[in-house]
Amino acid sequence: MRIVIVGGVAGGMSCAARARRLDESAEIIVLERGAYVSFANCGLPYYVGGEITDRDALLVQTPEKLAESLNLDVRPLHEVTALDSQAREVTVQTPRGEETLSYDALVLSPGATAFRPSIPGLDSPRVHTLRTVEDAVALRDIVEKGATRAVVLGAGFIGIEAAEALHNQGLQTSIVELASHVLPPLDDEPAWTVTQELRRLGIELHTGVVAETIIPGDTHDTVKLSDGIQLAADLIILAVGVRPETQIFEDAGVNTERGAILVDAHGRTNLPGVWAVGDATASVDSITGIKRPVALAGPANRAGRLVADAILRPETARALPQPLATAIVRVGKVTAAMTGANRAALEGAGIRFTTLHLHPNQHAGYFPGATQVHLTVHINTEDGRILGTQAVGEEGVDKRVDVLATAIRAGLTIDELIDLDLSYSPPYGQAKDAVNLAGMVGANVMDGTLKLWDARDLEETMNDALIVDVRTEVEVHSGMLSGALHIPHTELRGRLDEVTATADGRPVRVMCASGVRSAIAHRVLAQAGFDSASLSGGMLTLRAVLGDRAQDILVIPS
Amino acid sequence: MRIVIVGGVAGGMSCAARARRLDESAEIIVLERGAYVSFANCGLPYYVGGEITDRDALLVQTPEKLAESLNLDVRPLHEVTALDSQAREVTVQTPRGEETLSYDALVLSPGATAFRPSIPGLDSPRVHTLRTVEDAVALRDIVEKGATRAVVLGAGFIGIEAAEALHNQGLQTSIVELASHVLPPLDDEPAWTVTQELRRLGIELHTGVVAETIIPGDTHDTVKLSDGIQLAADLIILAVGVRPETQIFEDAGVNTERGAILVDAHGRTNLPGVWAVGDATASVDSITGIKRPVALAGPANRAGRLVADAILRPETARALPQPLATAIVRVGKVTAAMTGANRAALEGAGIRFTTLHLHPNQHAGYFPGATQVHLTVHINTEDGRILGTQAVGEEGVDKRVDVLATAIRAGLTIDELIDLDLSYSPPYGQAKDAVNLAGMVGANVMDGTLKLWDARDLEETMNDALIVDVRTEVEVHSGMLSGALHIPHTELRGRLDEVTATADGRPVRVMCASGVRSAIAHRVLAQAGFDSASLSGGMLTLRAVLGDRAQDILVIPS
Repeated sequence: MRIVIVGGVAGGMSCAARARRLDESAEIIVLERGAYVSFANCGLPYYVGGEITDRDALLVQTPEKLAESLNLDVRPLHEVTALDSQAREVTVQTPRGEETLSYDALVLSPGATAFRPSIPGLDSPRVHTLRTVEDAVALRDIVEKGATRAVVLGAGFIGIEAAEALHNQGLQTSIVELASHVLPPLDDEPAWTVTQELRRLGIELHTGVVAETIIPGDTHDTVKLSDGIQLAADLIILAVGVRPETQIFEDAGVNTERGAILVDAHGRTNLPGVWAVGDATASVDSITGIKRPVALAGPANRAGRLVADAILRPETARALPQPLATAIVRVGKVTAAMTGANRAALEGAGIRFTTLHLHPNQHAGYFPGATQVHLTVHINTEDGRILGTQAVGEEGVDKRVDVLATAIRAGLTIDELIDLDLSYSPPYGQAKDAVNLAGMVGANVMDGTLKLWDARDLEETMNDALIVDVRTEVEVHSGMLSGALHIPHTELRGRLDEVTATADGRPVRVMCASGVRSAIAHRVLAQAGFDSASLSGGMLTLRAVLGDRAQDILVIPS
Repeated sequence: MRIVIVGGVAGGMSCAARARRLDESAEIIVLERGAYVSFANCGLPYYVGGEITDRDALLVQTPEKLAESLNLDVRPLHEVTALDSQAREVTVQTPRGEETLSYDALVLSPGATAFRPSIPGLDSPRVHTLRTVEDAVALRDIVEKGATRAVVLGAGFIGIEAAEALHNQGLQTSIVELASHVLPPLDDEPAWTVTQELRRLGIELHTGVVAETIIPGDTHDTVKLSDGIQLAADLIILAVGVRPETQIFEDAGVNTERGAILVDAHGRTNLPGVWAVGDATASVDSITGIKRPVALAGPANRAGRLVADAILRPETARALPQPLATAIVRVGKVTAAMTGANRAALEGAGIRFTTLHLHPNQHAGYFPGATQVHLTVHINTEDGRILGTQAVGEEGVDKRVDVLATAIRAGLTIDELIDLDLSYSPPYGQAKDAVNLAGMVGANVMDGTLKLWDARDLEETMNDALIVDVRTEVEVHSGMLSGALHIPHTELRGRLDEVTATADGRPVRVMCASGVRSAIAHRVLAQAGFDSASLSGGMLTLRAVLGDRAQDILVIPS
């Protein structure tokens, strides 16, 4: 049996290695268009930034090592140019010329390439992408030759990582992003923390705009933005998204949707004997049910392994999991991570949800180094389903998102998070971990013990309700909402008459710094008969939602 | 309604706070024997060690703050001395004398005290426990007055934390432990890493022995061990376990088992109107079904909250979860954590299991700072049930154990870990995370793709089988098993005849450094018809199981 695999990184190489472990007798040929296989594509920005010093560290495997260890026939600089699924053969452009190669099973793992929007001047030699080892080596070379100004187009994961890398190398770096905030996969609230961290680093942000033209020059290019701003650049990185690299397979009859190869639960395409994995394929989103490409290394690597099973032991092979698209990025001292659906995806799919916001410490508050994990959790309050979560903070972010990704995959409901037995000692967590607390808040919302109001509804809330701010005197002097009634939560029980008088029939909407004290105050008010609700996530979330508008909206009490 | 709570820390105070949030009108009285309530008991060792500098940081709440915020009536220095469940009243020793107090609901959260074995001399004033703020303050005082030699009796969590605290304060510190290794809740393999770290720190270990006598002296005490060694001590810490503090409640008719209060799924004791939570209660172990006290802060805090629900809204209250007894400890640079059952618990309960050992990096190997997470997972290979896991390493240990604790709680089987969508980028993980890899190895074992042999069966394996060591030339020169055949895994396919000749009909047992290459070699051998198996966890696990015996068993090839 001959298995031919197109693409020697992530999904393709995982498939090849697993196939060999299952079958010593199979002939396994891996065709890779580039010069390198199995390289550390997620490590490229860190090589550009100098954190990974040695280029060879990026080369996780070589064809020689793979031949020795796994008896794989790995062929770099071999590009598949055509597929004849009837004849079961591919046409391959090799360093020696064109060849045809027959197969019994064909696995397509061609990946994706950088999307190239139609911007005049985009073909300037100062415009680079960051997808391959060659790209990374070229960029580091330019940096070492003294480039001083960089513009990164796109503030997705790769754009952010590239910008930080160039900043770390001393370049004055700007990011240009069409969306209203950096890291568009994040919701507004966590994205605000990332925005602040990028500003702290000294990276210049241009959001809500596009690059309209790139004007080449002798000494540098000029990037002209849609708001009229012009940015000088010795170096421009294009990172506005990726597109599946599937044209020749489409031409051969492989079914695709918006360029992404359609596969069944075992990675099979519509053509007999042809499977596909990785960035070039479409997956069914586990939360929304929407079909879309998920260009992430983890799912690609794991899918490659499962497709080898599907080819060699179809009767027992596991189905490919529907992705939660868990992702994580480091930005300066901050970590941002997410799993499941974000607000835009839920709204797009017409799924009703309520958002919980929490800001617990990552470990015991009395232990040195306590910092907050800012946690956003979208839930269905009818059935308790956890739809998605996002977290930002300096420590412990990856842990909470991974625990929640596991809970979502296992089908736990939000209230079941109360019962998770998570590791606790002062350096690592709290007796009620952030995830337990999310379960407690969620359960309270589900059974009506807690009613929340959302910072996104600030304007109508300010119009229709009395806002009661239960923070301390000192806290409100850093800024409060105009028209809010200030009663510290410790005094609330004795001042309910004041609330009644000021509310004058309006609903009462409570707030504090993080949502803990306002939840207590809400219980006091609700049991006293008020139509009350507590601001989800408190002032911390409100400021994150308001962003730069906070300074216009918050007032300093006299 | 009057709710009286006996014990103002962890479970008791969680119950009180939740009760108030549910019911503004209830009278809630918390009786605490000690001078402090709601203090950071898990933080005490770090105060002794100087890492927490300020004593007040340990006092998370005060009666005054709890009265203001939650309208709780918190009474320190109030000790309950008798319970009359017929009359629904308790007798209380107060600073003003004895009083009786009636209740509608009574919650017992008396906790546990240090177990005092019958050692002559244990009443020496140089012997201390570490359970209360007063204990911690006294110890720090002694340290600051110039104590130089400490002996810690017991190498459980508190013993280890206390020993490290005293070591950090410059004391020459010894630990005495009856079990064969430190941290008895850990299995041998992970405990070896902790042993090595304690030695690296310079803490002296005496395992497999007990303190037979403490001989008081003018300038210091002398601790005489069962192996004849004598340790001079300015300071002795007693940390050989705890016992529930339940005598007076037993006397009043509360059912107990070996001192621990028996409760139902909602924390109810056998007496009407009496609930119990925390270290003084027995829980049904989630894995073994065995009833035992679980003296951990997390379960106690969460149970306190659920018991408040059970009292105030019994119709909708959640059941208390059966504990997994997830626990974690920091030792120098090392973290050790565990969840579910260990080997001893499984063997004690007669549960069959197979142990997986993995040593993956906590993050991408090519990214600076990669270190190994040494992971041990006990599974049932018939149904895939995950029975328990332990992990040690410098980073990322808490995350993996928490993910596994979530998976166990949710009832995921080992093979389902393959599909967990965990966060990956080079600073945080690997495209196939340690937990995914555990799933892959477990699934391979379940379906027969991989057969493992266990380092604990070394002797019979060396007697009955040919051991094939597939590491490199350089690696085997750091020590290999005598009689093993050395064939680097890259040469194995071409040297199968040699294996046949040397095995001479015996089974073949393969090994490498960590179990990755030997799994590949196993597949080569098994498909070539050999009765083959791969050493679970490789030489790393073998050395951990052998401990100090490794130097006698391993040989340097000539």
